[in-house]
Amino acid sequence: MKKKLYEEIVLFYGAIKWVILSTIIGIIVGIGVTVFLKLLHASINLTSKFEYYYILLPFALFITALIIEKIAPEAKGHGTEKVIESIHKRNGKINPLVVPIKLIGTIITLSAGGSAGKEGPSAQIGAGLASIFADIFKLDDRNRKKLVICGISAGFASVFGTPIAGAIFGIEVLIVGNMFYEALLPSFIAGIVSFQVSSKLGISYSYHPLSFNYSFNELHFAEAIIAGIFLGLVSIIFIETLNFFEDIYKKLKIWNPVKGLIGGSILVLLTLIFSKNFLGLGIDTIERALNGERIAWYFFLVKIIFTIITLSFGGSGGIITPIFFIGSTAGNFLANFLHFDRATLSAIGMINLLASVTNTPIASSIMFIELFGKNNAYYAIISCIIAFIINGERSVYPSQVIQIRKR
Amino acid sequence: MKKKLYEEIVLFYGAIKWVILSTIIGIIVGIGVTVFLKLLHASINLTSKFEYYYILLPFALFITALIIEKIAPEAKGHGTEKVIESIHKRNGKINPLVVPIKLIGTIITLSAGGSAGKEGPSAQIGAGLASIFADIFKLDDRNRKKLVICGISAGFASVFGTPIAGAIFGIEVLIVGNMFYEALLPSFIAGIVSFQVSSKLGISYSYHPLSFNYSFNELHFAEAIIAGIFLGLVSIIFIETLNFFEDIYKKLKIWNPVKGLIGGSILVLLTLIFSKNFLGLGIDTIERALNGERIAWYFFLVKIIFTIITLSFGGSGGIITPIFFIGSTAGNFLANFLHFDRATLSAIGMINLLASVTNTPIASSIMFIELFGKNNAYYAIISCIIAFIINGERSVYPSQVIQIRKR
Repeated sequence: MKKKLYEEIVLFYGAIKWVILSTIIGIIVGIGVTVFLKLLHASINLTSKFEYYYILLPFALFITALIIEKIAPEAKGHGTEKVIESIHKRNGKINPLVVPIKLIGTIITLSAGGSAGKEGPSAQIGAGLASIFADIFKLDDRNRKKLVICGISAGFASVFGTPIAGAIFGIEVLIVGNMFYEALLPSFIAGIVSFQVSSKLGISYSYHPLSFNYSFNELHFAEAIIAGIFLGLVSIIFIETLNFFEDIYKKLKIWNPVKGLIGGSILVLLTLIFSKNFLGLGIDTIERALNGERIAWYFFLVKIIFTIITLSFGGSGGIITPIFFIGSTAGNFLANFLHFDRATLSAIGMINLLASVTNTPIASSIMFIELFGKNNAYYAIISCIIAFIINGERSVYPSQVIQIRKR
Repeated sequence: MKKKLYEEIVLFYGAIKWVILSTIIGIIVGIGVTVFLKLLHASINLTSKFEYYYILLPFALFITALIIEKIAPEAKGHGTEKVIESIHKRNGKINPLVVPIKLIGTIITLSAGGSAGKEGPSAQIGAGLASIFADIFKLDDRNRKKLVICGISAGFASVFGTPIAGAIFGIEVLIVGNMFYEALLPSFIAGIVSFQVSSKLGISYSYHPLSFNYSFNELHFAEAIIAGIFLGLVSIIFIETLNFFEDIYKKLKIWNPVKGLIGGSILVLLTLIFSKNFLGLGIDTIERALNGERIAWYFFLVKIIFTIITLSFGGSGGIITPIFFIGSTAGNFLANFLHFDRATLSAIGMINLLASVTNTPIASSIMFIELFGKNNAYYAIISCIIAFIINGERSVYPSQVIQIRKR
């Protein structure tokens, strides 16, 4: 009896401790991410006023590669990967310099027109702030690890306005097939608090409730499976191409900033051939796809090239916003052949690709409901899981541990 | 390249195989559960016309204990536990006789007024049908296991009309802290198909969208935590009392059917002291609580006693419907002290207790959204996880494996 009471007190104390710690992390990350997003948007608004702003891309990638190489090499590439690596290899220990460098690098990359996302930097900034907090209060490894996961969840929640999906993403993305339940409570609280803080500080989010709710029948069921297979294949193309370009980058025996110069020049060339649609975050195109406008068929393929060159050749940024662009335009394209309306398939495609490249089918399914509501959620979830399976053991995060047999 | 292509074909084949298998299981379980629910409701409607129908309880528990002991001992107690046990110990092998015996036992128990649920039998019927299917098609152990998990998910989905929560419940409940991702695709498909089949065959479901959506602030945040702690304590009382009575049952050295006779007599006595409100499924009381009516403070405590006596002493049935009664009335009682309205706290209490006693915080959180909508979901989720933690390593399913440090 006495033992049981002691056990209860320990549980109670642990729960309250984590409520407090994760609330604090949620507030810190919410403020940090808000500052980052405001600076980023201001900077993008400034540069995009100039017709040929992207001409600066070679210079921007040169500078980004340079400051990253000199000051914080961990800030290279897309951010969530680095956080996963730090959790698996260093119990979440993150170099504090990553926070400002990642912030500056991403702003330079995106303002000049590099194709990258804003969630990776946010997760890295969140995790970095959590790690600094753990340093200051001398937390042990286990507590630090949990706190850093909170940082990922909070960053994700504040960027996309989806705290439930953000929380699950943080604990699902580390080890595929083995959710990190110990961080469930702190991740949720940090995600929700961070999202509330960002909202109150003026970050706005867009949600797209779907107009149609298709009845459940064999036709739609079969088409959801086809969508899952198609997006799974897009995911394979994306990851294989990414790996191919990262190999080239490693094999090129020249100074990294020069590689940035080359990558930037290729992007300028590609922009002159195609258009400016593939530069930057690409929110306009994502919105058009989600609103059911018809997008040209090759958009998802061209965006893959832009994104991979940006992230492999010196640029700094996230990978999920481009994935939303690629997934939604691929789904939009698929609507030419299936019976779902274009807006619905764009939404399904967007979430499917996320589930597939990051191996997070549950977080992605929840994100669908948070962003698009309950309409067609059953179809979206089935196709998410199919896309997740078809992708096999590939991952956009090389440090992710895969502990599941998908066959 | 050739190896990668081969790998893809295997993944593709596996996905399609499981789409087909789980669709078939979804249809079979959907029909099976519908037959069970229709027989159950017809039978309850029949007996409840008589004022003192519960006088038959000693006889009913005697008969139930007798047929279970003679024909299929696995049908004893609450069903989901037995399915979990069969998955962990026998790769999901289930005695086919369990299906009809569980069906008959539960109908007898509930029609006479025993306090039990309908989801456990449904999960057991679903899992039993899946196991029979695996026998007929000579599936190997790994496939049988996945198929039986589909049966749990499908049974849950068809009873409560919550296919997403049902699917997650099936893969979350086996090992706490280690979701069974391999069964993700089949569980979802079986759940959704089974739910569609039951709906089309005339089973109706009730959903309760909450009228108020409380803004996010410190007061409500703190109160959600208090609700989680309170329901976690209710969960401890429930499980400890259940274990206590099951010990007594085992220590009593008399013929099991006679124990049923004794248990039934105690229930008759308790009904005469309290009222008929605690008999059967208790759906009326759950509905009243969820509609925001004020329920007497002692309801949740008395229902604990009724349920435990029914399930420990010979009765057959599920445990989740009584948990919904206990949780919603406990939440309803808590509304006397907090600032949430009564309907909201009843809904939160109902889902918290489920999360806590079954150790399924994610399935329960999703169930909240499926049953009650998005209003106050953040509060519900936080309190679900708190209740889950406070409960410690207890579980209403003794065979459940707990692979998580909650402290």
